[in-house]
Amino acid sequence: MVDKHFYDAKENVTLAQTAEVTSAVLTDASQGNTTIAGIATMSSAGAEDICFFYDRKNKEKAMQMQAKACVTTEELKQFVPANVIVLISENPKLAFIKLNEFMYAERKPAAGVAASAKIAASARIGKNCFVGENVVIGENVEVGDNCVIEANTVIAQGCKIGNNCRIGNNASIAYSFIGNNCYIYTGARIGQDGFGFQLIGGQHHRIPQLGRVIVGNDVEIGANTCIDRGALDDTVIGDGTRIDNLVQIAHNDKLGRGCVIVSQVGIAGSCTLGDYVVLGGQVGLADHLNIGSGAQVAAQSGAMRDIDAGAVVMGSPCVPFKDYMRQVSFLQKNSKK
Amino acid sequence: MVDKHFYDAKENVTLAQTAEVTSAVLTDASQGNTTIAGIATMSSAGAEDICFFYDRKNKEKAMQMQAKACVTTEELKQFVPANVIVLISENPKLAFIKLNEFMYAERKPAAGVAASAKIAASARIGKNCFVGENVVIGENVEVGDNCVIEANTVIAQGCKIGNNCRIGNNASIAYSFIGNNCYIYTGARIGQDGFGFQLIGGQHHRIPQLGRVIVGNDVEIGANTCIDRGALDDTVIGDGTRIDNLVQIAHNDKLGRGCVIVSQVGIAGSCTLGDYVVLGGQVGLADHLNIGSGAQVAAQSGAMRDIDAGAVVMGSPCVPFKDYMRQVSFLQKNSKK
Amino acid sequence: MVDKHFYDAKENVTLAQTAEVTSAVLTDASQGNTTIAGIATMSSAGAEDICFFYDRKNKEKAMQMQAKACVTTEELKQFVPANVIVLISENPKLAFIKLNEFMYAERKPAAGVAASAKIAASARIGKNCFVGENVVIGENVEVGDNCVIEANTVIAQGCKIGNNCRIGNNASIAYSFIGNNCYIYTGARIGQDGFGFQLIGGQHHRIPQLGRVIVGNDVEIGANTCIDRGALDDTVIGDGTRIDNLVQIAHNDKLGRGCVIVSQVGIAGSCTLGDYVVLGGQVGLADHLNIGSGAQVAAQSGAMRDIDAGAVVMGSPCVPFKDYMRQVSFLQKNSKK
Repeated sequence: MVDKHFYDAKENVTLAQTAEVTSAVLTDASQGNTTIAGIATMSSAGAEDICFFYDRKNKEKAMQMQAKACVTTEELKQFVPANVIVLISENPKLAFIKLNEFMYAERKPAAGVAASAKIAASARIGKNCFVGENVVIGENVEVGDNCVIEANTVIAQGCKIGNNCRIGNNASIAYSFIGNNCYIYTGARIGQDGFGFQLIGGQHHRIPQLGRVIVGNDVEIGANTCIDRGALDDTVIGDGTRIDNLVQIAHNDKLGRGCVIVSQVGIAGSCTLGDYVVLGGQVGLADHLNIGSGAQVAAQSGAMRDIDAGAVVMGSPCVPFKDYMRQVSFLQKNSKK
Repeated sequence: MVDKHFYDAKENVTLAQTAEVTSAVLTDASQGNTTIAGIATMSSAGAEDICFFYDRKNKEKAMQMQAKACVTTEELKQFVPANVIVLISENPKLAFIKLNEFMYAERKPAAGVAASAKIAASARIGKNCFVGENVVIGENVEVGDNCVIEANTVIAQGCKIGNNCRIGNNASIAYSFIGNNCYIYTGARIGQDGFGFQLIGGQHHRIPQLGRVIVGNDVEIGANTCIDRGALDDTVIGDGTRIDNLVQIAHNDKLGRGCVIVSQVGIAGSCTLGDYVVLGGQVGLADHLNIGSGAQVAAQSGAMRDIDAGAVVMGSPCVPFKDYMRQVSFLQKNSKK
Repeated sequence: MVDKHFYDAKENVTLAQTAEVTSAVLTDASQGNTTIAGIATMSSAGAEDICFFYDRKNKEKAMQMQAKACVTTEELKQFVPANVIVLISENPKLAFIKLNEFMYAERKPAAGVAASAKIAASARIGKNCFVGENVVIGENVEVGDNCVIEANTVIAQGCKIGNNCRIGNNASIAYSFIGNNCYIYTGARIGQDGFGFQLIGGQHHRIPQLGRVIVGNDVEIGANTCIDRGALDDTVIGDGTRIDNLVQIAHNDKLGRGCVIVSQVGIAGSCTLGDYVVLGGQVGLADHLNIGSGAQVAAQSGAMRDIDAGAVVMGSPCVPFKDYMRQVSFLQKNSKK
């Protein structure tokens, strides 16, 4: 199903290769030289494709698959039609990732700096980087090795970008230090002034915003997401944190490691999130909150108070998940009387 | 009221022309040569303007209008002051659209490709297109006829754009096929990777995102809206669907025909919407939901379950509209005791 | 704590200067020649820094400060450790702003027009302006004096920008008149068509959008925020209003003076806001509402009806704050039975 118009695909991949790449066991060893044409979902896989089955909920789809081969678990293989060649994996989802990475590749631009890019004389660009058309890089910027900076993106004075980073087109970065292996998507805005002012004599007087944005390693920042720089302290995004599209992160927020921030979340200023915090889509956090490590906040919830580590909460204002379900149930029953 | 500084306006439009263009009947035939200066709202129309009256709720405004002429219905004309010339229409709202289109025109740029545009040698641009300053068009891109691609927009390798499309400035398109007559607004991000990863050994490991975005004909995609490409399948937007600003559409979503997606809606991954689904502003849908054709979800609602065709729902979690109103009423009454 | 890598900082600022700039009184006059290295928060201030203490809630932090000097009030100085030099101010928060403005400066680009900027022959750019790389300015645009227009921004035909404005990079402005002293952030989209159409024979037919966006003086418009132009009337933003990131303001909205619109708010079409209205983060307003001056709508609330001047409301649908708290409390108690 992957469109070779967009992606480069390996041809003639055999099931023996598949087994090796995915650490799976080919149940019928005689099929080692059989080739697969592509990876597809169970529903769309054709007679030359391989698919992956790892969730018992989808057993109906499994039973109807038309694929040539299927990677699944020992436990689930019973649902795969007899004419499909089975590969057994302890973790078919990981196998899926591995085979995708093996078979398909996004086309990366060749290293080089477009003639139309405007790079300040004092900026330093590392080895093996691609800098696209009309990119603007300010004074004293430092970009590491093997980075891709796509067209029309602006990196303002003084920023540092680590190695192996990818920055999508039309993005804006200012007052920021970005770690290694980060992926910043198209249209992301990082490092603009926070929303701070003081009402004096009927006028909103701007509070100077003099901090930075410090982004760790292995971070993703989604399309059109905004991360304001700190007011006096810094805004900090921890290693391995993933931020989806259209998220707002305000000044002085500190996000820990491995957090997952789903689309359209809004985090008001000076919040602290521990590690592996999960915020569902459209969640809102009031300012100055502490959210403990491992806490999970369900989509559309709103928090006005701190949340304990490991808590699972829901609602606006959010409460423990069970309490929320009880509230919903109470309201539905009693309002019908 | 329309500012000729921005729009080109026809001069000396007569009421006879107005009647013809709008399929309305001029009640006083002797006024056929009377001219109007412009179209305005009932409140702001001056003595040379024409206005439109089609909603009985606005009868107070109608009774106070200062306009020269008014297009309204047989039923509503009683509220129009006696000195205003009346034109009778079966559909004054449509008449309003028609007269606007007749009298005013947005200024379209003349066809041509800016010298600063960077178009890959393998890309093909159709006839009569405008390609603005600093536009970047990748390898093998195909653009149809009569398209306008505004400044600083980036269309990545392999994309296809149909005929008569308009793409606003500073937009990003990748891994996408766009139909005919589409209007993509400034800052829209189409085709970036979906938000997919697997936690392995404490690290979020990216799941390759290898699908596309397939946009039908006559689709509008609002400013700064984000549409992620599919993971393995495609993300699909059906013909005639209208998407407002700042909307998030995740990987593998399938939207039917004629849907209306109001600003700041967030649709999680792998949802399927039928035809003419309406999602009010800030609505959130959990992943893998089926929303039946004609369903309407009120603003700020959240859905965690499938929604039947034709259902009208509200709340978070959403319930049928009447139940929602009952819940609100129950809570307001009982909490005051 | 302010990073001189990004900001220019005055060296050797004395406490006498500090007192003068902030209108504070140095309690120990013998310390007038003592210098401070920088401004920091109470928690992070080192032995050479000055900090500000103005909220009794932070008295624990005050008692542990390591700073050289602290600006505070007569009432709060009791919590400052004895070895810290105290300056007394009637308004330490304002003093904080003043000293920041005195000590630190953002680096403004020197006036001049980049060679890569594309400025229409009929456009007029005022004195002492900076126009960045790849900026595109259309026919008949007028830009006042002392403006900064950052890279890759597009200002379409006919727009007027006042004096002393700053427009961030990658922004889009069309069909708009912008006042003086405005700050438009990166990626803001101002003046695109509103979301208006009429369903005719199963097709959404676009309603022409022929108004403008009129922005007053001293307005801020946040990153990736969208403001649609009016349909026939104008969309209006009053003097001194502050709009955060990722906000949606629809066609024909009229915002008064000094409003505060926090991130991710969505205002549907034809709403009227009085002066000094505050909308918390993620608030949604239905169309055609009147929100009285001084009204405050708490974060995540939704309004379907008009709101009185001075009202403080919360919830979706929003109710007076006390009623909302009663509802929350009622639900929490009764659902646990």
